[in-house]
Amino acid sequence: MTNTPLDQALTFARANTAAHLAQLQDFLRIPSVSTQPDHAPDVAKAAEWLAAEMRRIGLENVEVIASAVGKHPLVYADWLHAGADAPTVLIYGHFDVQPVDPIELWETPPFEPTVRGERIYARGACDDKGQAYIHVKAAEAYLQTSGRLPVNVKFLYEGEEESGGESLADYLPKHKEKLAADIALISDTGILSPDQPSITYGLRGIHYDMLDLIGPDHDLHSGGAGGAINNPLNALCHIVAKLKDEDGRILIPGFYDDVLELSAEEREMLNKLPIDPEAWRAETGAPALWGEPDYTLVERLGARPTLDLHGIIGGYTGKGGKTVLPSRVHAKISMRLVPNQDPAKIKQQFRDYVRQLTPPSITLQFEEDGHGAPASITDYSVPAMKAASKAYTAAFGKEPLFTRNGGSIPVVGEFQTHLGLESVLMGFGLPNDRIHSPNESFYLPNFYRGIETSVQFLAAYAEL
Amino acid sequence: MTNTPLDQALTFARANTAAHLAQLQDFLRIPSVSTQPDHAPDVAKAAEWLAAEMRRIGLENVEVIASAVGKHPLVYADWLHAGADAPTVLIYGHFDVQPVDPIELWETPPFEPTVRGERIYARGACDDKGQAYIHVKAAEAYLQTSGRLPVNVKFLYEGEEESGGESLADYLPKHKEKLAADIALISDTGILSPDQPSITYGLRGIHYDMLDLIGPDHDLHSGGAGGAINNPLNALCHIVAKLKDEDGRILIPGFYDDVLELSAEEREMLNKLPIDPEAWRAETGAPALWGEPDYTLVERLGARPTLDLHGIIGGYTGKGGKTVLPSRVHAKISMRLVPNQDPAKIKQQFRDYVRQLTPPSITLQFEEDGHGAPASITDYSVPAMKAASKAYTAAFGKEPLFTRNGGSIPVVGEFQTHLGLESVLMGFGLPNDRIHSPNESFYLPNFYRGIETSVQFLAAYAEL
Repeated sequence: MTNTPLDQALTFARANTAAHLAQLQDFLRIPSVSTQPDHAPDVAKAAEWLAAEMRRIGLENVEVIASAVGKHPLVYADWLHAGADAPTVLIYGHFDVQPVDPIELWETPPFEPTVRGERIYARGACDDKGQAYIHVKAAEAYLQTSGRLPVNVKFLYEGEEESGGESLADYLPKHKEKLAADIALISDTGILSPDQPSITYGLRGIHYDMLDLIGPDHDLHSGGAGGAINNPLNALCHIVAKLKDEDGRILIPGFYDDVLELSAEEREMLNKLPIDPEAWRAETGAPALWGEPDYTLVERLGARPTLDLHGIIGGYTGKGGKTVLPSRVHAKISMRLVPNQDPAKIKQQFRDYVRQLTPPSITLQFEEDGHGAPASITDYSVPAMKAASKAYTAAFGKEPLFTRNGGSIPVVGEFQTHLGLESVLMGFGLPNDRIHSPNESFYLPNFYRGIETSVQFLAAYAEL
Repeated sequence: MTNTPLDQALTFARANTAAHLAQLQDFLRIPSVSTQPDHAPDVAKAAEWLAAEMRRIGLENVEVIASAVGKHPLVYADWLHAGADAPTVLIYGHFDVQPVDPIELWETPPFEPTVRGERIYARGACDDKGQAYIHVKAAEAYLQTSGRLPVNVKFLYEGEEESGGESLADYLPKHKEKLAADIALISDTGILSPDQPSITYGLRGIHYDMLDLIGPDHDLHSGGAGGAINNPLNALCHIVAKLKDEDGRILIPGFYDDVLELSAEEREMLNKLPIDPEAWRAETGAPALWGEPDYTLVERLGARPTLDLHGIIGGYTGKGGKTVLPSRVHAKISMRLVPNQDPAKIKQQFRDYVRQLTPPSITLQFEEDGHGAPASITDYSVPAMKAASKAYTAAFGKEPLFTRNGGSIPVVGEFQTHLGLESVLMGFGLPNDRIHSPNESFYLPNFYRGIETSVQFLAAYAEL
C-alpha cells in the first residue's frame, strides 16, 4: 500500500474537518468590510489573523504589508523549497467582505457564523474567506504530514477586493521578482452544482461610477416649488431610463463598439452547459427571466455587458410620506464589461453621455472614486488548467466543465498585465450562496472538497 | 382720545412681543412629527400644551379630543359671548410638523428654537405652529384687555395635517352643529414678501402614493445576475420617466381631462403679481427654472398640476460601492392637483398606468396608506375676504394682492364639503422660510404683524 505525500495530505484534510470549520468560523467573525471606513481596523485584524495562521502552519516569510496608498493591507507568505525545477504557484484570495445591509434580513447575525444543515452562514463565508482559506488548509495538510509541498507556493491575499483593490494594484508592478510564478491560482468563483464542478475561463470586467444630481440648493416643499423646479429624483429617472432600454440593451453611444462577440464554437459550448433557465430563475425568486432578446441566459450572464443601478440616496426615506422636493440625489451605477471593452474608455463614454443627458436645470457631479477592471479570458490549454481539471475530477468524482462567469475579478487582469501570469480560477461557490446578499452561506461539502481539490492540484501541477 | 377694544388689544399685542416669542419657543420645542409613529407621544404633548394655553388665556370648553380612528388628537376651544347677531369664525391650524431629515443639514437642532437675526429657526416655526399660534395670541389680546371678543370664535386645531388628517376628516361630519360658523380662518400659507401681503384664494390638491417594485426575492450580485434579472431600481426609472416628460408634462392617460383651465382674466391678474422669476429661482438655489413651456412661473406653481418623486429606498445606500442587484425598491410619489381634478380618479388613473408600465419581470405593490385631497378655490367676494383685506392693510400698511398657492390644505375642501364653509387663508409665511426643509424658520416681524392682522380681522369681520 502506497503512502505518498498526496495520500498523507488527503488523510490529514479528511481527519481535520471539524478543526477546519472551527478555524473558518474564527476568520468569519471579523467584520472586515472594506468599503466602510469604520471597519478599516477590522480589515487590518483579518490580515493579522490570516498572517498568524500562515505562520502557525509553517509557511515562511509571512508579512502583513501596509498599504502604500493608504488603504487596506496585503498579506504575503511563501514556501519555496520544492526544488529549482518545480513550478511556482501564486495563490490569491481576499479577506475583505461586502457590506451587510439590509441587516434586518439576516436570519442570524452576519458576523456570528452559524451552521445550519450543510451550510455555514456568515458574510464572507463563500466570498471570499471560505474559499481563500481552502488553500491555507491544503498547504497545512502537506506541511503537517510530509513536511513539504510538491510545488513552490507564494500566497498574496488582499483586503480590498470589494473596494477597488488599489493597494494590490500599486504593489504588483513594484514587486515583479518577488511574485514571479508560473501560474496564479484564485478561488473566488463558483461551480455549476454540488455534483458538477466547473472551471471559469472568462470573467466580465466592470466600470463602477457614482454621481450626484443637484437641483435646488436646499430641500423644497413640492407644493411650493413642484412644477417650476426640476426634481433631481425625477431627472435621475429620465437619465437612467436612457442608459439602458427596457430589454437590457445599453444605449450609451459607442458602448458596444469593442465588444468581442462569441464565436459559434464557444456559443455552442456554453449553451450545452447543464443550466436550466427555469431552475436558475426559481433560485433568484424573480417572477420572470429578463434580458437581451437575442441572447440565451448563459450568454447574457457570461458574455454580454450590462448596466445596473445599485443604490439611490435621495429625498425622504423614512416611514410614511413627506412632500419634499429634494435638493440632491446620489446614484451608484455600474457597467459589467466583456472582453475587449476598455474600462477607461467606457467610463469616458458613460460620463460624456450622462453629461449630455443632464438638463440645465440640474447640476451633475461625478465622484472620483469609481473603479474599473477589464474583462478577462484565460487560455484553457495551459498545463495548470489540465492539472485543475484532474484535481476537480479526483475530488468531486466528475470531470469539470468550462464556463464563463458574469462577475469581475480585477486581479486576473492585473496579474496578466504586471506579472505576465495566467490565472486558474478554481471556484467552490454555488449559485445559491447569496454572496453580496443577506444570509450569505458556503456549502460545507464544497469547503472540504475544496481543500482536497487544492491538495490534488498542487500534486498534479508538479507532475505536468 | 378713543380707546376701543381694538385699540386695547393692539396695545396689548405690541407690549407683549417678548412673552409671545418665549411662549412660541416652548411650543416649538415639542417634536410633534405626525408621520413618524415614534413621535406620537410628542404630538399628544403638543395638543396638551396648546389646550393648557387656551385655558390660560380665557377660552372656554377647551378639550383635547382623542382620535376616533386611532391617530392623533384634535384640540377644540371656543368663546361664544359676542351676541346672537355677531358672526362666528372657525379658526383652524395644526400643531404637528414635518420630519426633520436630513438632520445633519440643520445649523441648530430643529427642536431647539433659536433666534438669529429677525428669524426664529425650528421645525414647525412657520408650518404651522407659528402661524396657528398667532390666533391664540390675538384672542388673548382681546380677552386680557376688554375681556371679550368682537365675534364668536371656535378653535379647531389638528395634529396630523402632515400625515393625512384622518382624525379631522372623521370628526367634521359628526359635529356639524358644534362647528357651525360663518367662515373658516386658516393661517398655513404665505405672503409675497415682507412688504407685500397677499391672500391665497386657490390651493392645489394632492394624491400621494407609495409603491414597491420587487424583482428577485433576495438581493443578488450584479456580476452573477446582471443582464438576466430585471433590476427593480432600473425598472423604477423606466416607469417614472414615463409618468412625466422632461418638460414637466404628465403622461398618465386622462390626467388632464378634468383640469379647470385659467380664464384669461385670472391669468392676467396672476401674471401681474410682483414675482420676479429670477429672484424666485435664486432663492431656491436651482441652476435654472424649469417646467411646462406654455405656462409662466406663477401659473406652473399655482394653477398647473404636477408630479414629484419624494424618495426612493433601494439598493446600497452606504458609503462607497456595492455591486448589489437589489430585491426591492420603495418609491414615494405625489401628484399636485388643480380645481376639478378628483383625487380618487387620479389615484385610479395613476395606479392603472403604473400597472400597465410594470413588466412581467417585476412585481408591483401599492401601499394602502396613500392620501388625497382636492384642490380648492375660495370666492374672494365674500365679506370675510374684505375683512381680511382690510386687516392686512391696517397691519402691513399695504393692500394685499390675491394669489394662488401650489400647496395643498386638505381641510379647506373638507370644510366646504362637511360644514358648508368658505375659508379665508390668512398666511404669514415667506418664500424663504424653508418649510419641509432643514433650517425652517419664521420671520418674526410677520409673527408680530400676524397677531395684529388677526386682531384687526376679528374687529373688521364684526362690522361687515
